Amino acid sequence: MSISPNRDTTLCMSLAARPGTFGVRFHNHLYDQLGLDYYYKAMTTRDLPAAIGGMRALGIRGCGVSMPFKEACIPLVDELDASAAAIESINTIVNDNGHLKAYNTDYLAIRQLLDTHGVDPDTTFALRGSGGMAKAVASAFRDAGLRNGLIIARNYETGRALADACGYPWQAELGDSRPQLLVNVTPIGMAGGEQADELSFETAAIEAAQRVFDVVALPWQTPLIKAAGELDKPVITGLEVIAIQALEQFVLYTGVRPTAEQLRLATEYART
Amino acid sequence: MSISPNRDTTLCMSLAARPGTFGVRFHNHLYDQLGLDYYYKAMTTRDLPAAIGGMRALGIRGCGVSMPFKEACIPLVDELDASAAAIESINTIVNDNGHLKAYNTDYLAIRQLLDTHGVDPDTTFALRGSGGMAKAVASAFRDAGLRNGLIIARNYETGRALADACGYPWQAELGDSRPQLLVNVTPIGMAGGEQADELSFETAAIEAAQRVFDVVALPWQTPLIKAAGELDKPVITGLEVIAIQALEQFVLYTGVRPTAEQLRLATEYART
Repeated sequence: MSISPNRDTTLCMSLAARPGTFGVRFHNHLYDQLGLDYYYKAMTTRDLPAAIGGMRALGIRGCGVSMPFKEACIPLVDELDASAAAIESINTIVNDNGHLKAYNTDYLAIRQLLDTHGVDPDTTFALRGSGGMAKAVASAFRDAGLRNGLIIARNYETGRALADACGYPWQAELGDSRPQLLVNVTPIGMAGGEQADELSFETAAIEAAQRVFDVVALPWQTPLIKAAGELDKPVITGLEVIAIQALEQFVLYTGVRPTAEQLRLATEYART
Repeated sequence: MSISPNRDTTLCMSLAARPGTFGVRFHNHLYDQLGLDYYYKAMTTRDLPAAIGGMRALGIRGCGVSMPFKEACIPLVDELDASAAAIESINTIVNDNGHLKAYNTDYLAIRQLLDTHGVDPDTTFALRGSGGMAKAVASAFRDAGLRNGLIIARNYETGRALADACGYPWQAELGDSRPQLLVNVTPIGMAGGEQADELSFETAAIEAAQRVFDVVALPWQTPLIKAAGELDKPVITGLEVIAIQALEQFVLYTGVRPTAEQLRLATEYART
């Protein structure tokens, strides 16, 4: 570390049931590289109101919020950014002198990725999933102007609710649909899960698609991404999502925007 | 820093109206030297109950407590160690899986210094001061078996209360008394204070004394300590108090006791 801990170091944190290593490595690496007197600590809690109250009382500058706190934090903050308000899910809290404002940088990351990857608004797509992250992704697609979508979810209740909220039709299975863009927002392909080795879309659909987007970040090389790669299809990966959402948190906490090269190196460092 | 910040780093903190630099430098230096995966952050708060509640909810391992929170923290913790219970003042909180136990390592430091400096229980002494720290010092003197003491305080109410609590007589001024040990526990001689250049005891009393003890740590070379030094009297300084109280906090937080040499180097590092 280039800067020693001192009295005035600004503290940031994260809250998750099972803290990961990406955030703590990503943020601290960039603080170090950019010479910022910040320190980032991953935490967990069994008392969310006291944890957020402590963040406010102790002047902790920022907090990344992960499962299962993304909805429960909402009544504990003072203000919701548009990125969080529309999807009723937050992943970032910024503390300005005791005033807590919440954001959803997952939503912001998806918007950014649709833009940088040049996804045409006329693209037909199927989004599989109906959890909190699926809501962020589907909302970002809708707000980016992608109208030709389909929500795929076996769970009727959550799938239908998400589809209705975002204005897309719902189907339990993909069936014979062959959209141009396949989007996985389920835990299928995630390390340690029961479906770690499974494909989130069937091979015929992958072969027919023009592009594949998987939000699973651990590993980012999911069976779906690998299958698309073998077919030379362009992909958008969960590593890009996690990196850009962390980057946007970083900018909110510090007011400093790292360069593309600094982002690349921090992501490389954090994912190992 | 020899250890990079990571998910499992243990966090310690301090709370003070105006955080100093000694603790943050002392603790982080020793963590680094001993290869302990800890991080110490000095903090302040305008909402003490939420700050202590946050410490508990976030699993922050230890908290050093300074002015003006030493009494106000008492109802916020779960258990008082004997070092804190008798004097109703705490300067250290240890969090064991959500159970907060409070200590007073100022008291422990004074006890230790009376012992290592070989202060005889029959020594006559005058202790000047009647604030929270004076209570810790007077209680430590009493519990170390020093019976021949005198509390000097211009404030009748607090001086008399402290004297009664510890079983010593009270006087507003030292007058013609010439005790063997002079103990300053007032802000006289403290940098930045109104009486920074003043002697806490008159010259005649210093000349008559065998030893001088000043708890002022910033600077530790107070006018009193300098005057005693010029007369070749042995001294006990506030630097020793602040170092040993911090050392005992360190042991409580980490379970590791640094060597005397490590303590010396950490104190040297922290006071600069």
